[in-house]
Amino acid sequence: MIDNKLSEKVEYNLSLEAVQGVINQNLLQTDEIFSEIMQHLTQENGKNLRAMLLLVTSTDEDGFVPQNAVVAAAALEILHLATLVHDDIIDEAGTRRGQLSVQSRFGKKQAVICGDFLFCQCFSMVSEMSADYPNRLKEFSGAMTKICIGELRQFKHNADTDLSVRKYLEIIAGKTSALFSLAMYSGAILNEDNEKDARFMGRIGFRMGMIFQILDDCADYEGNFEVAKKSVKHDLAEDVITLPLIYAFFKKPELKAQIRNKKLSIAELNEIITEVKNLGGVTMALDLAEKYYLKTKKMIDLLPDHKKRLLIDEILEKIWKSGK
Amino acid sequence: MIDNKLSEKVEYNLSLEAVQGVINQNLLQTDEIFSEIMQHLTQENGKNLRAMLLLVTSTDEDGFVPQNAVVAAAALEILHLATLVHDDIIDEAGTRRGQLSVQSRFGKKQAVICGDFLFCQCFSMVSEMSADYPNRLKEFSGAMTKICIGELRQFKHNADTDLSVRKYLEIIAGKTSALFSLAMYSGAILNEDNEKDARFMGRIGFRMGMIFQILDDCADYEGNFEVAKKSVKHDLAEDVITLPLIYAFFKKPELKAQIRNKKLSIAELNEIITEVKNLGGVTMALDLAEKYYLKTKKMIDLLPDHKKRLLIDEILEKIWKSGK
Repeated sequence: MIDNKLSEKVEYNLSLEAVQGVINQNLLQTDEIFSEIMQHLTQENGKNLRAMLLLVTSTDEDGFVPQNAVVAAAALEILHLATLVHDDIIDEAGTRRGQLSVQSRFGKKQAVICGDFLFCQCFSMVSEMSADYPNRLKEFSGAMTKICIGELRQFKHNADTDLSVRKYLEIIAGKTSALFSLAMYSGAILNEDNEKDARFMGRIGFRMGMIFQILDDCADYEGNFEVAKKSVKHDLAEDVITLPLIYAFFKKPELKAQIRNKKLSIAELNEIITEVKNLGGVTMALDLAEKYYLKTKKMIDLLPDHKKRLLIDEILEKIWKSGK
Repeated sequence: MIDNKLSEKVEYNLSLEAVQGVINQNLLQTDEIFSEIMQHLTQENGKNLRAMLLLVTSTDEDGFVPQNAVVAAAALEILHLATLVHDDIIDEAGTRRGQLSVQSRFGKKQAVICGDFLFCQCFSMVSEMSADYPNRLKEFSGAMTKICIGELRQFKHNADTDLSVRKYLEIIAGKTSALFSLAMYSGAILNEDNEKDARFMGRIGFRMGMIFQILDDCADYEGNFEVAKKSVKHDLAEDVITLPLIYAFFKKPELKAQIRNKKLSIAELNEIITEVKNLGGVTMALDLAEKYYLKTKKMIDLLPDHKKRLLIDEILEKIWKSGK
């Protein structure tokens, strides 16, 4: 069966659709006990950025994606979904991807089990490929571990008004960039790139993750909630300190006292958002994101395959423009 | 490194200690952010039944356990620990292994992340062995999936006074026996048994799990809380319907109304416990456990290796006597 799969390839333009098919197959064709929750989860797709990055990196010279890459991209999105389901418990989030979160629709307990099940499905899909890539599995578990460490680090620094820029970057490197990096590294490996080139791709992915997360954190201070599709959520309401706020603290340390140990009202929240913007917190954060963006552009320019360079650049532009 | 490991073997009598060493190494020598939680978790050991079953099955004719089996047994106990940490969130349990549960000491949110991290560590350890056992990983993920299905099934049947014996057995087959079965199957594979013999070992493990879980469920109705080390917990208080209660319902269906949609007081709880005992619910459940016990004994008698037969029988007796 695996041999059959290996011989099949999918056209790049059709590969994301194929990934969606594999995701649905792995989530919907399972024990009936999970069907209601899985129906709910597959109703609304995310941006599939991680899958896209893996697919584009795995594309061969003729514009085809190996079947293993389709499965790996699906596994990556399911892993991402698992972290989202558990994140929503941690953040007590009411909505996700424009619909009710698993924890608010089915309860915390079912959300815990559902996230575990998604981890299992990812593990299971990746295991199926282990015969072809015997020593590569540790990259997957390594990235999963980094995500957990990032999550816990973020949680421990909740409401920590003294969080440094360095610590903030460390947190988002774990919780977001680790998976972006894995996506591009895995894609390269599945395209049979050598280790050095695959690592380089991984580093591009890492930076894309940093850009994505900083822009996402800025979006919360733009009042532009539609962009982040998290209409009722705000980092500050969940005690998550992000870059625009850290920069605003630099300009006006008194702001810390306004936040510390307080349950903010909507009015207070809006006041602080406006103040962070006025103090230049968002602009400074966007400046840092731009530095990552320019550096990433330069790295992409170094890629030898012209077609692939254009496709990767397209995704970078998509992240950059949708976030700005 | 893996080659080195393969050549090392550990004496069976010292192997459980070696497993404990590998567990501590994998949980304590990790990112400092997890150190407090991991210190807490490693303070109190469980019974290590799953590790013991794997170790004994993997023992060679000279009484030695391969190093890979030590790592696999440690991974299995870490997987079990992950399910316990998440279980405690689902059950809102205050204590575990005689000390505060992670969720009650560190909060639900940290417990979610901690369980995920333990899953990752298990996955990571198993991945390290994937080069030696390329097609075996799916057994691990398969068992993990079965546990999730068992957990969700149990949760969905919470407070379901019409739960059938068949459904109950299906639930415990997933949540407990899947891992016991995996332990003995993996041990056999690591001892280079052929597939058929390994499956037979897996079936012995499966039955040991059934015995263990039925006895554990009976213990809650014995008032013998020390045995189960869950002093402040009771299945009924968490709406978990188990075998002694199901049998009691057969004898006195009116009992269902006493439980349905009610938050029981301690006095009411004790009354029901006494009634379940008086109606013969516990005796009937123990009878079923005994059927499993006798069948398992017969299966163990069929094993060709005399020394191994004695050692496995010893563990069965341990489960049987400590639960009765």
